[in-house]
Amino acid sequence: MKHFISLHDVDNVQELVQEGIRQKANRFADQALGKNKTIGLLFFNQSLRTRLSTQKAAENLGMNVLMMNVGQDSWQLEMEDGVIMNGDKAEHVKEAAAVIGSYCDIIAVRAFAGLKDRDADYKEIVMEKFRQYAGVPIVNLESATRHPCQSLADLITIEEFKKTARPKVVLTWLPHFKPLPQAVANSFAEWVNKTDYEFVITHPEGYDLAPEMVGNAKVIYDQNEALKGADFVYGKNWSSYTHYGQVLSQDPSWMITKEKMDLTNNGLFMHCLPVRRNLKVTDYVLDNQSVVIPQAANREWSAQAVLKTILAGM
Amino acid sequence: MKHFISLHDVDNVQELVQEGIRQKANRFADQALGKNKTIGLLFFNQSLRTRLSTQKAAENLGMNVLMMNVGQDSWQLEMEDGVIMNGDKAEHVKEAAAVIGSYCDIIAVRAFAGLKDRDADYKEIVMEKFRQYAGVPIVNLESATRHPCQSLADLITIEEFKKTARPKVVLTWLPHFKPLPQAVANSFAEWVNKTDYEFVITHPEGYDLAPEMVGNAKVIYDQNEALKGADFVYGKNWSSYTHYGQVLSQDPSWMITKEKMDLTNNGLFMHCLPVRRNLKVTDYVLDNQSVVIPQAANREWSAQAVLKTILAGM
Amino acid sequence: MKHFISLHDVDNVQELVQEGIRQKANRFADQALGKNKTIGLLFFNQSLRTRLSTQKAAENLGMNVLMMNVGQDSWQLEMEDGVIMNGDKAEHVKEAAAVIGSYCDIIAVRAFAGLKDRDADYKEIVMEKFRQYAGVPIVNLESATRHPCQSLADLITIEEFKKTARPKVVLTWLPHFKPLPQAVANSFAEWVNKTDYEFVITHPEGYDLAPEMVGNAKVIYDQNEALKGADFVYGKNWSSYTHYGQVLSQDPSWMITKEKMDLTNNGLFMHCLPVRRNLKVTDYVLDNQSVVIPQAANREWSAQAVLKTILAGM
Repeated sequence: MKHFISLHDVDNVQELVQEGIRQKANRFADQALGKNKTIGLLFFNQSLRTRLSTQKAAENLGMNVLMMNVGQDSWQLEMEDGVIMNGDKAEHVKEAAAVIGSYCDIIAVRAFAGLKDRDADYKEIVMEKFRQYAGVPIVNLESATRHPCQSLADLITIEEFKKTARPKVVLTWLPHFKPLPQAVANSFAEWVNKTDYEFVITHPEGYDLAPEMVGNAKVIYDQNEALKGADFVYGKNWSSYTHYGQVLSQDPSWMITKEKMDLTNNGLFMHCLPVRRNLKVTDYVLDNQSVVIPQAANREWSAQAVLKTILAGM
Repeated sequence: MKHFISLHDVDNVQELVQEGIRQKANRFADQALGKNKTIGLLFFNQSLRTRLSTQKAAENLGMNVLMMNVGQDSWQLEMEDGVIMNGDKAEHVKEAAAVIGSYCDIIAVRAFAGLKDRDADYKEIVMEKFRQYAGVPIVNLESATRHPCQSLADLITIEEFKKTARPKVVLTWLPHFKPLPQAVANSFAEWVNKTDYEFVITHPEGYDLAPEMVGNAKVIYDQNEALKGADFVYGKNWSSYTHYGQVLSQDPSWMITKEKMDLTNNGLFMHCLPVRRNLKVTDYVLDNQSVVIPQAANREWSAQAVLKTILAGM
Repeated sequence: MKHFISLHDVDNVQELVQEGIRQKANRFADQALGKNKTIGLLFFNQSLRTRLSTQKAAENLGMNVLMMNVGQDSWQLEMEDGVIMNGDKAEHVKEAAAVIGSYCDIIAVRAFAGLKDRDADYKEIVMEKFRQYAGVPIVNLESATRHPCQSLADLITIEEFKKTARPKVVLTWLPHFKPLPQAVANSFAEWVNKTDYEFVITHPEGYDLAPEMVGNAKVIYDQNEALKGADFVYGKNWSSYTHYGQVLSQDPSWMITKEKMDLTNNGLFMHCLPVRRNLKVTDYVLDNQSVVIPQAANREWSAQAVLKTILAGM
């Protein structure tokens, strides 16, 4: 594995999940691998879990960490080719990526969707420019359309908590008042499609994810129907893909409650966090029927599996 | 010692002061203790000494450090239970504390008083939520009502500079145009009350500190009277506790000058810094009659004594 | 070498250039030198290359790094002596420098020119206050009038890429719509004046640099004339020194293009970055006739040579 921008960079998903479980069991075993190696963490957007877990994982592996909030610590970056740079963006990604690549053995980047221009977002311009110009492996810390470090942690969590070989996993849309990216939902769908779990996606009409993400999942527009017998309920809000970036519904009946969870097979609630309590899911579910904390804790092992695999391949 | 949120977490104040003096004398002796241990430093507010000295102390002890400006690097945190989270706070402290606790062996938090609601501030909601949910030791880097890392550094400094076994220590209010928290003054009073120093507090009427902080100190409203024979003059501005958060006086005659210091027993001026020159204390006093720089330098050994004691108890 | 604030702190420029080349060839050889040593990096202004390369260089040398955005992470600093501090600056540099100096073995500072008051800028108040009060070596990460870490990297780059013993180096002004400091151009001129290169400076009338920076360079107001036979074309915009801080021209004919480069001796374009493409220099030149990326990469070895030399002299 050279880069870790999307699932398509991964040779073997199951092996990477197992690597995460191994790193968790023996967290300081590979410190020689990262000695005198440096990772740069670049944040175009806010971050809590991703920021902390990736730095922690890198340090577990003996690496040094350079951290930068782009546009705040440094300059705003121009992503378009051929423009006359007479606006507020003082530096082109072509230089920035190459220069940071000269200081770092790996670069990890977080850059959310703009949610204005679907084509631009789905081209993953920031990730692709870094891949093209940095000259070193790129790790996706959540991009316009994907969040693979999260998805890998999600699969590790399901493997740890599943009670049957082939659990039923339901990805459900949750209500929210703001337009949020599709990245987490997209990525979760893409990764679960690589497993043999039973996989159902449920959301109001108008919220269908991109077909290449949905893959072989069964889509059901009736949440109650979808939740029946679920072992895992993966909640997330996203704005519309078809009416790009729009909030088409804030229907509170899609909030996950104890009553909804009663429809499941003693299911466990999952969410990437941050989660707005009593808007997307009730206190009761989070406090009694969820694995959101161990799921977030697994972000460390997900990041560590990714970095270890990249380092080992250098 | 599990946590270090206030004096009440400390088994033996004198022993902790001595630990600070020992760490200063032998600063890299305990590096094995922190190896592969991680501290998270969370700043809800600005910081210079606290930020730098705590990171330095942790690294002296061989620890890794994760640093985060909350609400800027990451999301704003909701502290209230049971609310519908439909405002500007995207994450609840219940998740944030537990998640950060999963990445860190110790969490250190700075969160100032709001100065609007005395009950809320004096309940120390932020510290108590982190204590409740993080699952790891919490260190107070200045909270709504206390700044114990500062107070420990203050006692180390007095022990180093005292010329008599039982010095006279005067905590004096200083003028300022902005409403400042009571945390430093509160904490200093609490800690000095654990020593056998002669302890006097002086301030204009209306500026009495909370009774549980004042303890056995002698309160004198006449600054000149209070300063007589002082070995240490500890200056600080604070807003009113009784008229909560208000600026009742900006009386410039409370500024510490050479003339005021002439009333003392060749006293030394102390202040936690930052200090506004020629508003709270004159250039002359700071440049000739103060120990503010060694006092700030002792923040490193104060933090190191606290972290060492917590690590040793794990 | 105690400090590294300007060229005047350097005993032997050629030896420092060679130290940079040696550090690059053997980047982890001096890790024992920095063990248990701490550098504080203070940023009054934005930074990408300087931030990352200096942290990297310090870590290559085994040092710990404390990083702080002044006025954002911490308080704004008062630089003037004797003032009554009743404004928005809560801390005086006298305390801040001394306190940070107590935590750090070396302090590195970035603080740009204000471009309002030439005398104030050219007095280098921030650097000189830190030199005066910190009690430890100070490294200039770009000050009001100089950027010596950049200049050292520039000379390393010329040494690596030169094809004749005594190349012709042309420093040319480039158009820009904002008033920029003279620091990079000043510093480059000062350093090149310490070599035996043929050195020409070209700019529109009204853009003459300070005479002490120009030194023995030949100044030509006709860019085409100046570029003839150049081995290196060092581009930079700066605002006027004589009409201090003003933009006197945005003449687009000063942009470096392929046609301009055709006047040179197969010259190589250099720039400190960030560079605005197609405003100061065309895509073609940057992508085909420049060494801006290896030049920026050399910032790591420039910083490492400086830190190594300071550490070795302690």
